[in-house]
Amino acid sequence: MQRIETIARLRNLLRPRRGRRLGLVPTMGYLHEGHLSLIRQAAEECEQVVVSVFVNPLQFGPGEDLDRYPRDLERDRQLAEEAGADILFTPGVEEMYPGGAKTTVRVTGLTDRLCGASRPGHFDGVATVVSKLFHIVEPDRAYFGQKDAQQVAVIQQMVHDLNMPVEVVPCPTVREEDGLAMSSRNVYLSPEERRRATTLYKTLREATREREAGRLCQAAEAVQFIRERLEMTEGLSIDYVEVLSYPGLEPLERLDESRSIAAVAVHLGSTRLIDNVIWPQEEGTRCTAP
Amino acid sequence: MQRIETIARLRNLLRPRRGRRLGLVPTMGYLHEGHLSLIRQAAEECEQVVVSVFVNPLQFGPGEDLDRYPRDLERDRQLAEEAGADILFTPGVEEMYPGGAKTTVRVTGLTDRLCGASRPGHFDGVATVVSKLFHIVEPDRAYFGQKDAQQVAVIQQMVHDLNMPVEVVPCPTVREEDGLAMSSRNVYLSPEERRRATTLYKTLREATREREAGRLCQAAEAVQFIRERLEMTEGLSIDYVEVLSYPGLEPLERLDESRSIAAVAVHLGSTRLIDNVIWPQEEGTRCTAP
Repeated sequence: MQRIETIARLRNLLRPRRGRRLGLVPTMGYLHEGHLSLIRQAAEECEQVVVSVFVNPLQFGPGEDLDRYPRDLERDRQLAEEAGADILFTPGVEEMYPGGAKTTVRVTGLTDRLCGASRPGHFDGVATVVSKLFHIVEPDRAYFGQKDAQQVAVIQQMVHDLNMPVEVVPCPTVREEDGLAMSSRNVYLSPEERRRATTLYKTLREATREREAGRLCQAAEAVQFIRERLEMTEGLSIDYVEVLSYPGLEPLERLDESRSIAAVAVHLGSTRLIDNVIWPQEEGTRCTAP
Repeated sequence: MQRIETIARLRNLLRPRRGRRLGLVPTMGYLHEGHLSLIRQAAEECEQVVVSVFVNPLQFGPGEDLDRYPRDLERDRQLAEEAGADILFTPGVEEMYPGGAKTTVRVTGLTDRLCGASRPGHFDGVATVVSKLFHIVEPDRAYFGQKDAQQVAVIQQMVHDLNMPVEVVPCPTVREEDGLAMSSRNVYLSPEERRRATTLYKTLREATREREAGRLCQAAEAVQFIRERLEMTEGLSIDYVEVLSYPGLEPLERLDESRSIAAVAVHLGSTRLIDNVIWPQEEGTRCTAP
């Protein structure tokens, strides 16, 4: 595996395509099993896999954890290589945003809710950096984790609307044994917070069972069910609990109206955690631009 | 030359690249000598040339001339073929913006002034549609006329900021014998307005001579010089007269501080016309993304 730091070198390396299929796994580094499952799937499906590690300042708001976001490039290098990456692309901020960058890609509508409401500008930053990575790498397929379900929806919408020649592949959330969704931010948690964090998925699973048993039929009921259980967890404060259509992220009344997502964001101490389940549970559908 | 109306057919046709260089000339149709000079230059430099004809609703404001914008596809087909186009891409509005498109590409800063100030949202529409065309066609080079100097600057900035793998080639403004810049909108002019329209370039040329003779040194003086002469033309109302740095489009004091643009927009009856000169006069520089 090669590690590349500049756009020009990466382009030169990737230019002679010779018909091989190229996969991209965009990450902010501090790789965990979730990322590695993306890399493994990319390596299975593609002849060449680029993993990017870039902590994108554009998607952090003021007061967010940009400065303390965990980083360990040496460990990332090793893990990415073992999982099957061919190239690790690790540009610096100045390489990605040379002075005077003025262009933003904005997806409206489905960025107003969930994390978009709590983190204004976040998805502009995501859409803009992913758009840059797509132009730099020109991948055939790009792999994203369903834990960031809204991010997947935003990127699928962008790819569709701007006719980007790439297939977006959403991959299932990878969880710890006790159900906590893998996240680079889990390292922030104290042992006590770590125990409490299991309530997120436990609650989403309970709600799924209730829904499957026909005891939750309305979105508002499901929100209330989840909210009540989360509120019982000490030291946990709710950012949002929402049940929306998926992937459109529109409000809905009855849960059988369409595919839906139950999504939660909470703070445990100073750490923000998100999780979600899709109802009915099935594989994310792939999306290609028209 | 083939005429193609759908994105899918165009992609299929262009897919086997075999290393040939592909040029794109995006237009809104009703082709004139300005467009044809772009097509000819593309045909000289590239093995395959796609000309797109799409009157992009996104770049027209409310009350602008979207509905009456001149169209003549049969004539365009013939002219484009004679000039050396291989493919004429003529998608409909529904093909380019299927229901529910939510993504916008926005270049901030240099879109606030000149036509951006008079036509809010115009350059978002331009950046978004050009971004789509770049993703659909995946050209090596894209050709734009310097008559729309601000458009060229906006697209160069977008390509740079989003690392789009395309070279933007600005081409000189083509003029009628009496100096009027070629524009599809010139057909709107009555014979009387057509005569009066020559004042634009005449005035810009006079200002250029004054500048070269050292009699215009300040941007504000140049603005005043141009404004006074335009105001003497009957039936002409000024939208803007500005002298800015080019391609940054920043205010400047002394004309020798940097390369600059003298840009004007006027209304003659219900027709809006623009023109510009770059000081000192030289070829537009090509721009590639980092």
